[in-house]
Amino acid sequence: MSIRLTIWNEFRHEKDNQKVKDIYPEGIHEALASYFRKCDDIEVHTATLDEPEHGLTEDVLANTDVLIWWGHRAHDDVEDEIAQRVRRRVNEGMGLVALHSAHFSKPFISLMGTTCNLKWREANDTERLWVTDPSHPIAKGVGDYIEIEAEEMYGEFFDIPKPDSVVFTSWFSGGEVFRSGCTFTRGNGRIFYFRPGHETYPTYYNEQVLHVIKNGVQWVAPTEIKDLNFGNAKPIEKL
Amino acid sequence: MSIRLTIWNEFRHEKDNQKVKDIYPEGIHEALASYFRKCDDIEVHTATLDEPEHGLTEDVLANTDVLIWWGHRAHDDVEDEIAQRVRRRVNEGMGLVALHSAHFSKPFISLMGTTCNLKWREANDTERLWVTDPSHPIAKGVGDYIEIEAEEMYGEFFDIPKPDSVVFTSWFSGGEVFRSGCTFTRGNGRIFYFRPGHETYPTYYNEQVLHVIKNGVQWVAPTEIKDLNFGNAKPIEKL
Amino acid sequence: MSIRLTIWNEFRHEKDNQKVKDIYPEGIHEALASYFRKCDDIEVHTATLDEPEHGLTEDVLANTDVLIWWGHRAHDDVEDEIAQRVRRRVNEGMGLVALHSAHFSKPFISLMGTTCNLKWREANDTERLWVTDPSHPIAKGVGDYIEIEAEEMYGEFFDIPKPDSVVFTSWFSGGEVFRSGCTFTRGNGRIFYFRPGHETYPTYYNEQVLHVIKNGVQWVAPTEIKDLNFGNAKPIEKL
Amino acid sequence: MSIRLTIWNEFRHEKDNQKVKDIYPEGIHEALASYFRKCDDIEVHTATLDEPEHGLTEDVLANTDVLIWWGHRAHDDVEDEIAQRVRRRVNEGMGLVALHSAHFSKPFISLMGTTCNLKWREANDTERLWVTDPSHPIAKGVGDYIEIEAEEMYGEFFDIPKPDSVVFTSWFSGGEVFRSGCTFTRGNGRIFYFRPGHETYPTYYNEQVLHVIKNGVQWVAPTEIKDLNFGNAKPIEKL
Repeated sequence: MSIRLTIWNEFRHEKDNQKVKDIYPEGIHEALASYFRKCDDIEVHTATLDEPEHGLTEDVLANTDVLIWWGHRAHDDVEDEIAQRVRRRVNEGMGLVALHSAHFSKPFISLMGTTCNLKWREANDTERLWVTDPSHPIAKGVGDYIEIEAEEMYGEFFDIPKPDSVVFTSWFSGGEVFRSGCTFTRGNGRIFYFRPGHETYPTYYNEQVLHVIKNGVQWVAPTEIKDLNFGNAKPIEKL
Repeated sequence: MSIRLTIWNEFRHEKDNQKVKDIYPEGIHEALASYFRKCDDIEVHTATLDEPEHGLTEDVLANTDVLIWWGHRAHDDVEDEIAQRVRRRVNEGMGLVALHSAHFSKPFISLMGTTCNLKWREANDTERLWVTDPSHPIAKGVGDYIEIEAEEMYGEFFDIPKPDSVVFTSWFSGGEVFRSGCTFTRGNGRIFYFRPGHETYPTYYNEQVLHVIKNGVQWVAPTEIKDLNFGNAKPIEKL
Repeated sequence: MSIRLTIWNEFRHEKDNQKVKDIYPEGIHEALASYFRKCDDIEVHTATLDEPEHGLTEDVLANTDVLIWWGHRAHDDVEDEIAQRVRRRVNEGMGLVALHSAHFSKPFISLMGTTCNLKWREANDTERLWVTDPSHPIAKGVGDYIEIEAEEMYGEFFDIPKPDSVVFTSWFSGGEVFRSGCTFTRGNGRIFYFRPGHETYPTYYNEQVLHVIKNGVQWVAPTEIKDLNFGNAKPIEKL
Repeated sequence: MSIRLTIWNEFRHEKDNQKVKDIYPEGIHEALASYFRKCDDIEVHTATLDEPEHGLTEDVLANTDVLIWWGHRAHDDVEDEIAQRVRRRVNEGMGLVALHSAHFSKPFISLMGTTCNLKWREANDTERLWVTDPSHPIAKGVGDYIEIEAEEMYGEFFDIPKPDSVVFTSWFSGGEVFRSGCTFTRGNGRIFYFRPGHETYPTYYNEQVLHVIKNGVQWVAPTEIKDLNFGNAKPIEKL
């Protein structure tokens, strides 16, 4: 059964920052979408901040199995109501792949319950993402590590609840470490946070990075949306 | 060093429900407070919903090491701003002991990121709280289990993120199980959720229940409030 | 790609206990095998204690993706060398489904590092296995719970390390709870412990129980056997 | 109540390797012992490999609350029976602090159930141990990180079961990361693995390293040795 994937992007840097525009002329969402359109069994849809309801209407979300989220400087422009709509859908079973600065997005913070704060530096650090949970499906097809020549640095302490799994842990040439690939479960829904992808680097053309994002999309996709029963319950009959 | 404990209670049932009034004439907070006032090294303060700012001013929270929360039918009357204030303080390091129906309180839900929903039944079920993490400090002094003759039932699925530890798992005579004693970490703060304590039962006079709540208060109390450093970071000098 | 499944059974009760013989005339392994032979993409092989090398030669294990283990009264008759062979294969990536009294088997104990002890009672308790991790693939297709009319009771404290997930938690009519469906990761390998299946009950003909075991087999099956690199490592070149 | 601490050391390098002898003339155990003798509420005892029963008689272990273990090249010279004796005592409640190459010691491996393998390099790497669980008592009094100018490198993948907490994650100048401070629970006992301390470096004179080891000793010390009840259990009376 195919996965209905919605790729959400803030899509602002790409409009007014020439450097970013040069790298992602159609936007980060289109760079990702063009990769996923070539994958079997994935139906690709995109949505961006400046569309009505940020492109995330009830109808769109009801028909989304997995949502990818990229946002950075305009987190506050996301309507609280839309952020809560995303959160509710994750609780119901929609998968979420939160990329890079999505750690500070409203939906992600509301699903974590922490500040999601961290250290950062824009200085062309080399990043090595070491696999720290090799049997996890998200690490499938990855060797000991993935190396990215230049990226923004994110460093610990990363203020998140204890992840279910830390699939990747990053090393940065400037002296930091970071839990770069983290999985969480919230209600019926699965979440994968994946660090790489600052807008001034061509990270979303890196085949290994794209491969991991695809693994993530497949892993957070719901295998079944259970109809959970809550509320007043009868006692066992025979007692 | 002594623990500054604030016991927060909704304090409404006790005013207009005669059955509850008979059990807790001064309110649930006073039943708990009278126990903790006899404990060494604990300074007791109380606060209730109908006080200004629900009794939880910035000043009160700044001088609280551990907050106990009991609420039930008036969760919606808690101001969002006060709920977020509590959440922020937990992220900073204040301990939280969430009792019984506090699973549905605004601060608890916002710290969990899930619906926190569950099954329930008011039918005088017998509850047995089995110790499922015996080396945890919260289980200190408890035998194989604690038995409560009659209580409201709470049943799985309990929609919470995976706890750091499930210290107690309840058995109910009507046929259900429940993760009754759960610990979580959120930022610098520790959380203990403990199930028993429906307002129509004298559960907060049960010595074993009180003992566990005391263990909980001691365990969530911060050992140190770290000054976490976030934001722009310099690279390692020698590289 | 199909899963190569080896079903291992102690196969002694079925030979000399008439009650067990009546329920499982060909042995517990054959009851399970006849179910799995009807499943798509699973190749079934069986092995028993009294075969040479307990039927678990290096060659058999090298060609096994998932091993099901059922043992009870003859744990000590399993050669240490064979038990260690199983453990090594799990560390390398072979999946293990440990059923019922396999909690006390040599391979399981050596993979856990604890005593794996528990409480038990043979008294026809009713068992209800509540789903406590509904989004886990092993719970797929299961409702709120599975009920078994009569079974041996296993009760907490169950002395195991903290599981990665507690997919099922059992309620017993005699007053106990038990973490009945637990997942673990050890090296490249995944483990699923599933409680039901005392030899004097026809539990392995229960369609829901069989369905969960099948889910377990599929979940522990390796998606990839990574070639982990250990030992002396060179530093990063450019530094 | 004071903690009865036994410091166990292989104590061979210090006898025949002049470099190590120069750093630890009385042995690594004595360097640690001289620090702990100055701590309040800790009674210090030492034991070494070449003593009868490796200095770990039933009587010694019965009177040990916390065992520190340092071993490296002579893991195989530890008698299986003594290794199992240590494991049993940990299951019963004795705390264990496993230092550096103790990851490959018989007691540690048997408590983990994995290979405990890793990458390594002796090349004077700079190590930074970042705090990745700041509210954990073992991190008390530590800032963002601890830096050690030169140490042996240990790198991921470190083949251990998922720790209860990863208190420290190391960065190495040569390009690796490592989960350097890990806690585990096994039965009634707590375990802290702490990476630093290769014999050719004066690491066990580093005040911050010693401080963390002391935090570890205090945290693994049992708060209560519960008398766990296993075996045949009666049903609840009233049913």
